[in-house]
Formats: sequence, structure tokens, C-alpha cells
Amino acid sequence: MANLKQVAERAGVSSATVSRYLNGSLSLPEATRSAVDAAIADLNYRPNPFARSLSRGRTDLIRMVVPEIKAPFFAALVAAVENEAFLREQELALSVTLNRPGRESRYLDSVSDRHVDGLIFVTNHPDVAPLTGRITAARRVVLLDEDVPGAIAPRLFCDNDGGGYLAGAHLAAHGHACVAVIGAGDEMHSGAERFRGFSRAMTEAFGADVQITRKSGSYSREDGERHCREILAEGLPVTAIFAMSDELVIGALDALMAAGLSVPADVSLIGFDDILPLDHFATPITAIRQPVEALGVRAVSILLDTDWEDPAARRRVEILPVTLVDRSSVASVASLQTATDPQEEHR
Amino acid sequence: MANLKQVAERAGVSSATVSRYLNGSLSLPEATRSAVDAAIADLNYRPNPFARSLSRGRTDLIRMVVPEIKAPFFAALVAAVENEAFLREQELALSVTLNRPGRESRYLDSVSDRHVDGLIFVTNHPDVAPLTGRITAARRVVLLDEDVPGAIAPRLFCDNDGGGYLAGAHLAAHGHACVAVIGAGDEMHSGAERFRGFSRAMTEAFGADVQITRKSGSYSREDGERHCREILAEGLPVTAIFAMSDELVIGALDALMAAGLSVPADVSLIGFDDILPLDHFATPITAIRQPVEALGVRAVSILLDTDWEDPAARRRVEILPVTLVDRSSVASVASLQTATDPQEEHR
Repeated sequence: MANLKQVAERAGVSSATVSRYLNGSLSLPEATRSAVDAAIADLNYRPNPFARSLSRGRTDLIRMVVPEIKAPFFAALVAAVENEAFLREQELALSVTLNRPGRESRYLDSVSDRHVDGLIFVTNHPDVAPLTGRITAARRVVLLDEDVPGAIAPRLFCDNDGGGYLAGAHLAAHGHACVAVIGAGDEMHSGAERFRGFSRAMTEAFGADVQITRKSGSYSREDGERHCREILAEGLPVTAIFAMSDELVIGALDALMAAGLSVPADVSLIGFDDILPLDHFATPITAIRQPVEALGVRAVSILLDTDWEDPAARRRVEILPVTLVDRSSVASVASLQTATDPQEEHR
Repeated sequence: MANLKQVAERAGVSSATVSRYLNGSLSLPEATRSAVDAAIADLNYRPNPFARSLSRGRTDLIRMVVPEIKAPFFAALVAAVENEAFLREQELALSVTLNRPGRESRYLDSVSDRHVDGLIFVTNHPDVAPLTGRITAARRVVLLDEDVPGAIAPRLFCDNDGGGYLAGAHLAAHGHACVAVIGAGDEMHSGAERFRGFSRAMTEAFGADVQITRKSGSYSREDGERHCREILAEGLPVTAIFAMSDELVIGALDALMAAGLSVPADVSLIGFDDILPLDHFATPITAIRQPVEALGVRAVSILLDTDWEDPAARRRVEILPVTLVDRSSVASVASLQTATDPQEEHR
């Protein structure tokens, strides 16, 4: 099989140029690119990671495990990890679990079996206890986005508590003391943290006068619609809703639209993630923005740069900051079309 | 290592129950699920595809190659393929190429090298000539979404020509004879087909009176914004825009918003893909909807069910129908705020 040097000679460029072109760190003029591509094709050159692993005792292959790929946050997170893995010259094997425990276990074992060098692990179901020992045993595993309590592994999260606090403080600053929160429950790290920060901000502002209705479930559009519909059906006097994901925001909007309510004239709405083009929505949605690029870059860096023999490094927790993107979906409570019970007239 | 039967005995269920639970075709009550999960964990059971491949001479591992994962259409397509692969008890290895030729070649070779059973191949750059021979040689490759001319492989596309035609007929029915098209150029199968159908519909409606401005590039938000900005800057008298992807729609809206123009009062807009929640946009966007679930299901089925020894089967082309989702972004040309040059007053 041809090597890099032969490809470079055939294309009339240096080996470094071919190498940097293939790893994406160099853009070439069209003519040079064509010459390199032709040389790769003519010589049947393959920069095969498996071949490299035989000579170097490493696979240069990392795996990312995600519960699903369709939610905008996961799609963006995978794209960020993929891009950084590429820049670090690692092949990325992506695996989607659909939250099946059998699958998560199998992928964790691929580290122990040395089929991959390491694993970036994202799960979002609460029944993670059976995974704890496997994660600790697999060693080179980075827990990203959600926690697996008890496992010994470095962790990387966005500032869920801080994001919840920003959302709560923003609603409080607009006078909303009677609010609803829809999203994950306390059994999920993200749900617990976001709610804790949110409650703290509300309590700081209003003390005992706070009324928070909480509806817990998944981060899906379906649950957003269902929870919001329940809030309306129960006649809860909420003036604002904190929806813990982009998809929950869409679901909440579905329910509000169906009930003939508008945001923010009837009810204020604040989201979390800010991956979807919320700026183009009928009412541009105010949301807590996840640092999704930074999470991807840092997750790869932790996986590749951690000294896995160092017990302290294996227990490190990193938190990346979030920001509030202020658009127009939160209005002052004083401006509400109907004072305390916006949905009264619609029932 | 424990086998399926031991897991089933420990959990007090049948082997079939465990099997169907693990392959996702069966939902279990919470208590049963916990018992099965506990048995899997306690017995260290692994339904390992590599182990299966040793005994059956197959890997039960298929690969899907996509140019990127972040665009809503690709994220949805991958999710659809993933879901169907899961139902067919195939492990799916996802690989993102970022359109690097070295990477595409390597993944194609993984079929020849028998690292995977087959490959669903999506590319979206025009320089595919070096891949032609490799695809033919790899055999078990399904070309999805975009073509690689010359390669011998079954192909699965949405009805790009039909979708373009629907878009053109819809604009024509609203009186738009002077329009712009932004999207992929003729070097891409999707771009050529969508434009061909679109032009045909317009010509059928208006004959020689049609004026179509075409701006070709990628399907990205950035290109949508840039092309739309150019159309405005050049003072082109277009009354409607056909944007060939969700992301181009967002980019076009960015540019129109920046110019102080509204849809459809100043200019009509019709999209393609309909994966994003276009129904919640400031103006709900009319768009051609891709059959993304059906594309995923059918791609897996072609890969697994094709008789690869049959030359005719290897040359089959399937086209899945698209639909027009009519919302509110296309208005009659007679209702335009400014007759033929909507951007005149804004320059």
C-alpha cells in the first residue's frame, strides 16, 4: 500500500501538506487539492487508523455515546465533538443508545476490550446504577452533560445551576412570582441543578411568596406540549414558564397556540439550550444558551489529555458557564393581558 | 460470559423477552425492566456484535457516512437510519466526513476490508469522481440523498425534481414570474433536480415571461444569508425566493430581516426539508417536506435486503415522494407592498 510520501511525490507537494490537508488543518487551492485527491485515488492510499494502531499500540479511535441524535442539543454536541476529534486526528465512532441499558454497557465494554481508546459518554435516563461499576472499570470514560452518580470518571457539565439561576432571576426581575417549570426531574443531574438554581433565584427575590409548579419528564417536544396543556387545564395561575430545553419550548408553544394564548402577552416563556433558531420565532424566545462548542472541545481534550493514572484527575468535575440571550418572550407581569389567571377566559 | 438464557432465568422471564427488550421491540413494566437490567449487570452479560460475528461470519455492523451532523436534515436522517438499524438488530457505526476525500475513501474501504457488513453513503460535495471506483468495488453500498455519478450502487433519493416542481407551481399559482432560487448548483444531484423541476413548473405557467435568478453554493445558513443579501444588493426585481434547505431559509430570513423586509408582505419565501419547526416562525414558512423517516427506513432495507449478486438490483434507483406543507410565507404577487422591486426603498 502506498504511503504518505508517495502520495506527496505524485501530487508534487510536501508530505506535511498532504498530512495537514487530510487532517483538515490546511485549505488548498483547487488545483492542488485535485492533484492530491488524484494521487490518493491513483495510489489507493489509505490513512487507516487500524493500520496505525498496529504500529503504535493505540487505535486513535474514540467513541462518543449519546442517547439520541435528533434533539438539536445532541446534534450540536456531537458536531462539536466530531470537529474537535478531527482536529486532534482522532477517528470518532458515534453510537446512539436510545437509552437501552444493554447498548450502553456494550459500548462501555469496548473501552475495556481495547476496541477504542476512550469514550465520551452521554446518557439521559435515570436508571444508571448498573453502569456505575462498568464506567469505573473502563477507566478512559468522560461523563458529559449528565451525571452517573457513583462512577469514578472525570465529568464535564454546563453550569446547570447557574443557568437555572439566570432564568429565575430574569423572570423575578419582570415580577413573575407564580411560575411553572417543565423539564427533567431531580433524578437527572441537569433537572435537579437547573431547578435548584431557578428556585434559589426566585426565593431570593420573593421569599415565601414564590409559587413554583413543577412538571417533570423528558426534554422532548411531546412532554413540553403535555405539561403545558396540564398547567392550562389545571387552571394554575402561572404568569411565566421556564422550559428546560429547546424542544420543550416548542412543545409549550404548541400548547399555548392551541389554547389561543400568546407569548408574552398572556404568559412569559424562557428556554434552555438555544440551539434552534429561536431568534426567528413568532416571538423571539429568550433562553439560556448552552456552551455547546466549548463542551465538545473540552470533552475531547479531557479524554485525550487526562493522566488516567492520577486518581485526582479521574475525579475532576468541570463546569462551563452559560449565558442568557435576552429576546422578547419575557414581559413584565404588570403588562399581562389578564392579571393572574391568563387562561381563565379560554377554558 | 453469561448468555441470554442465564439472564432470562435470573430475571424470571423468557429468553425471548430479554432478546426483544434488548433489541427495542418490547416495552416492559418498570419492575420487569429493573429485574432484567439487574440480571444483565450482575451476570456481566454482553450481547456483543463482535462475538456474534465470529459465530455467524457477519458483523451485524453497518456504517452510515454523512458529510455533517449539525444540519437539521442530516440529524433527522441519521436518527431515522439509526432507529431502523436498531429495529433490524444491526449495530450502526456513524461516521462524519466533513467532506474530506481521505475520510470517505477510508470508510468505503471498511466494507472491502469486512470491518462492516455494508454502508449507507451520503456525500454532498461535487468532487466525487475519485470515489466512483471505490464504491463499485465495495459493493454493499447504498447511495442516499446525493448521487455519485458512475458508481454502480443502488440509489435512494427523495423526489427532488417533483419537490422543485411543487415549489415552482406554488409560486406560479400566486403569480410570481420573477423569482430567485438559492441552493446547490447543477454539479449536485439535488441542486440540478430541484432546479429542473422548479424551472419546468415556472415555464409551464409563464412561458418566456419567466425570470429566474439562481445563486448556487452550499445548503448552509451562511450561504442563504449571503445569496439573499446579493439579490437585494443587485436590485433584482424578484418577488419570491425558493430556498433549497431549512438552513438556507434561516439565512434568507436573516438577510431579509436585516434589510427591513418582511415575508410575505415584501417578498414570498418557500423552503425545502421542513425539519426545523417552521410552523413557529414569525411567518410560518411554506416548504417542501422531505420524507426523512421513510428515507431512513428504506435505506436500511435496501442495504440489508438487496441481492448483491444481482446486477439489476445493484443499479436500482428509488425515489420517495415529497409533499408541500402550505403555511403563510407565500402571498399573491398582487398583494405585494411594493410592486416589482420590493427592496428599492431600502437601499
